[in-house]
Amino acid sequence: MSEFELIDIIRTHCAIARDDVRLGIGDDAAILTVPANHQLVVSTDTLVSGVHFPETTQAADIGWKSLAVNLSDLAAMGATPAWATLALTLPVPDRRWVEAFSDGFASLAREFKLALVGGDTTQGPLSITVTVHGFVPNDAALLRSGARVGDFVFVTGTLGDAAGGLRLMAEDGQRDDSMKELVQRLNRPTPRVAQGLVLRGRARSCIDVSDGLLADLGHICAASGVGCEVDVDALPTSSALNAGFGREERRSLQLGGGDDYELCFTASEEIAAELLGDLARSGCGATRVGRVVERSGVRVIDAAGDAVVVSSRGWEHFA
Amino acid sequence: MSEFELIDIIRTHCAIARDDVRLGIGDDAAILTVPANHQLVVSTDTLVSGVHFPETTQAADIGWKSLAVNLSDLAAMGATPAWATLALTLPVPDRRWVEAFSDGFASLAREFKLALVGGDTTQGPLSITVTVHGFVPNDAALLRSGARVGDFVFVTGTLGDAAGGLRLMAEDGQRDDSMKELVQRLNRPTPRVAQGLVLRGRARSCIDVSDGLLADLGHICAASGVGCEVDVDALPTSSALNAGFGREERRSLQLGGGDDYELCFTASEEIAAELLGDLARSGCGATRVGRVVERSGVRVIDAAGDAVVVSSRGWEHFA
Repeated sequence: MSEFELIDIIRTHCAIARDDVRLGIGDDAAILTVPANHQLVVSTDTLVSGVHFPETTQAADIGWKSLAVNLSDLAAMGATPAWATLALTLPVPDRRWVEAFSDGFASLAREFKLALVGGDTTQGPLSITVTVHGFVPNDAALLRSGARVGDFVFVTGTLGDAAGGLRLMAEDGQRDDSMKELVQRLNRPTPRVAQGLVLRGRARSCIDVSDGLLADLGHICAASGVGCEVDVDALPTSSALNAGFGREERRSLQLGGGDDYELCFTASEEIAAELLGDLARSGCGATRVGRVVERSGVRVIDAAGDAVVVSSRGWEHFA
Repeated sequence: MSEFELIDIIRTHCAIARDDVRLGIGDDAAILTVPANHQLVVSTDTLVSGVHFPETTQAADIGWKSLAVNLSDLAAMGATPAWATLALTLPVPDRRWVEAFSDGFASLAREFKLALVGGDTTQGPLSITVTVHGFVPNDAALLRSGARVGDFVFVTGTLGDAAGGLRLMAEDGQRDDSMKELVQRLNRPTPRVAQGLVLRGRARSCIDVSDGLLADLGHICAASGVGCEVDVDALPTSSALNAGFGREERRSLQLGGGDDYELCFTASEEIAAELLGDLARSGCGATRVGRVVERSGVRVIDAAGDAVVVSSRGWEHFA
């Protein structure tokens, strides 16, 4: 299979028409129109085989996830997704692999009417870099830097599932349905785009949980010049995670495990109830897990208010 | 060295202030403003170690080239460069390598006042994906699809130098100054951004020569529904290439060798003289090398008008 046949497979699978795409795949570059009074929001993430996903991961799951982790960054800014470029590096030009990958990528792209507008295919060790583009009305983006002392801290969905799924895959034992659910959360994360739009103009700060709650909440605290307290017993927990792990392991997965792609945000106490109501109706509710305080750093306490010692503080490359 | 120290090195080296960057590196995504009445032009290219550059290539040259090949795509659209994202996958977090890479990247970025606005650093086999963003006034971009029968075909600069440099590197013998010049053309290509701006609104079609003249001119012909004749004896040739190679080898390098990153374009006979004058004053002149004809495909002739048999028709991945 030639490079041009390969590009044709991807293009055919990912064809979505958008009026703001003047020119998509097929020239030296794409030509695109950003709507008036809107800013462009751009993010890039790379997935490397054996680092960001196990080498045994299905091609369709890799396609989905390579887009999902990028859309999650747009969600954290409160942006509406529009376009993506895909840089795909493959060891061999395997037609069935590329078709399955494109299916996974396209099934998520369709949910958000996102158009694939360009990219590059190269030969080398398996690696995928996606760059996503979205819009926000001028100066309406959610930032990490707006948290204020007294804000409540929230997270959408449930935490620790993806890290739990990864641990189960490594153990490679018998799996019941709830274990499969955790692995599915690892392989097919749902970017919280709709929730980001609900938060826009209302949350004071926001980030997506990709490296682990403590690490990512630490970024909000550093950018905002504040600290926060997290109640480990308040963290939203799936029944699948609860069934699969004891208390200590569960806490470690929920505080330090990455790859959940939930949103962590802060908002004033006054609007909390209404915001939670609107999020619940958006298809994914949120839970209050802590409070922003003056003293810098992220401290973990339990329901009794006692300090909790944490073994893992989140994923970092080259650490 | 941690991932965050690594990002700091890159950010410090590549810091360029632009009014249209509302938010650069440091949040979940960048926030950017496209000027009114302009379209966004986006392109992505990946360089893989051992595929797109020899493994012995200096880090600073890799940094330069990873941006240059992308800027070349903007040049071919007649776009003004503005921003880039950088996805850098590294086997080990080597501080000196990252500093040298960033120096090379930044020295080219500064020439075009291009801001690095985001990216990702990951651990894995060495590979670099850059996504560049530029602007064109609405509907003014140069496309591959506008060539018309009777147009003259031109290329900027000289052809075959990069492929000649690559061959000399593979041979690994003694090098005189002219050989070093060819290797420099391979490692530090100059994107023809200024020339693309001169061509905007005047050339009928344009592409950059990355895969080889015949392959890239073939893309113009296919997109425009035309063919063309190329006079191999008219191809612009550097004295270094002439000194290093005999006639047959030189022809093969100039017709089929990639990585020159010159612009190949077509324009009407009427405006040719004035266009060539303006290009010459832009810092890089162009040469007429052929003519657009009705019969599809690219044919090569010599100065006597006789058909020339061509051994290599350009670089393709997975071919």
